[in-house]
Amino acid sequence: MIHRKPVALQKSYLLLNHGPVTLISSAHGDYRNVMAASWAMPLDFDPPKVAVVIDKNTFSRKLIEASGEFVINIPCQQQAQQVLAAGSETGQSLDKLVQFELTGSEASHVEAPLIEGCVAWLECRIIPEAHNQNQYDLFIAEVVAAWADDRVFQNGRWHFPQEALRTIHYAAGGQFFETGHAFEIEG
Amino acid sequence: MIHRKPVALQKSYLLLNHGPVTLISSAHGDYRNVMAASWAMPLDFDPPKVAVVIDKNTFSRKLIEASGEFVINIPCQQQAQQVLAAGSETGQSLDKLVQFELTGSEASHVEAPLIEGCVAWLECRIIPEAHNQNQYDLFIAEVVAAWADDRVFQNGRWHFPQEALRTIHYAAGGQFFETGHAFEIEG
Repeated sequence: MIHRKPVALQKSYLLLNHGPVTLISSAHGDYRNVMAASWAMPLDFDPPKVAVVIDKNTFSRKLIEASGEFVINIPCQQQAQQVLAAGSETGQSLDKLVQFELTGSEASHVEAPLIEGCVAWLECRIIPEAHNQNQYDLFIAEVVAAWADDRVFQNGRWHFPQEALRTIHYAAGGQFFETGHAFEIEG
Repeated sequence: MIHRKPVALQKSYLLLNHGPVTLISSAHGDYRNVMAASWAMPLDFDPPKVAVVIDKNTFSRKLIEASGEFVINIPCQQQAQQVLAAGSETGQSLDKLVQFELTGSEASHVEAPLIEGCVAWLECRIIPEAHNQNQYDLFIAEVVAAWADDRVFQNGRWHFPQEALRTIHYAAGGQFFETGHAFEIEG
């Protein structure tokens, strides 16, 4: 991952601010997993926090609750097939990374892997909030490290010269949108 | 708003699933206001819930806490200037709707107005969660009515024939992205 470069923590919210679909990776003991999640957003700037919905009925939930950690990986257009698959199948009885030909790299602060081929990564440590987790499947976490592919994110800004590396947004039923045309408004 | 059509509650999450920037409108007594928010996401399908971050230092926060209600309006490309302005100025001493030439229409279940020219609307009633509100500026709400412009949302799907009506995603510093090219993946 020669293009993976660190992102300053106080700028890490920018990786998620435009609402892309994400892949949440997790690990505990001998197990690891990956799931798709559209319901993830920044919650604070500094220290950076995120809010993510992780369903009770997923294997990822078990790993995330056991480890207290996860990584929010931001996939790109050429990974859409794998994102859809990661959202449709359970990792209980198989290694979804292997099945979907996803490679995990070692993260810096958490056990959960960084999914190669994604274009940004937020390493997260859960802030325990039992009521939110039990009542709403809602997890609050602090971002403890962040990375981005320097071909598409530099100096705090996304730019997408190649379609294959664009971030994507999930609608439903297999339909995605690419992150589209960028434009500036004078404040 | 002849193009505003009701959206079934259990499909209302689709209006927000792709992560567009939103305008949050509020009203209480003689006051009303509108603010921009990127940090809004679905939280549950049925009954539909949302999670939204509303900063303590905003006038909107006062109106929303006093009324227990708000509307998530989803603006389109041609409103980007107003979205940026609504995110930059306070409504404490002026009516931001008037200042930004936004027109509010009557909602069906809440006092907060529906902002005309937007392409979708979620009327929301807060589920009180004092700890989340105080600690994280995080509000959880139930969606009690939903609407969309039938030129861009029909039968549970977004489609954007006109650029001006595309939903938008906020990066930072006045930079937006349009919701881009749609594509389908076979499951």
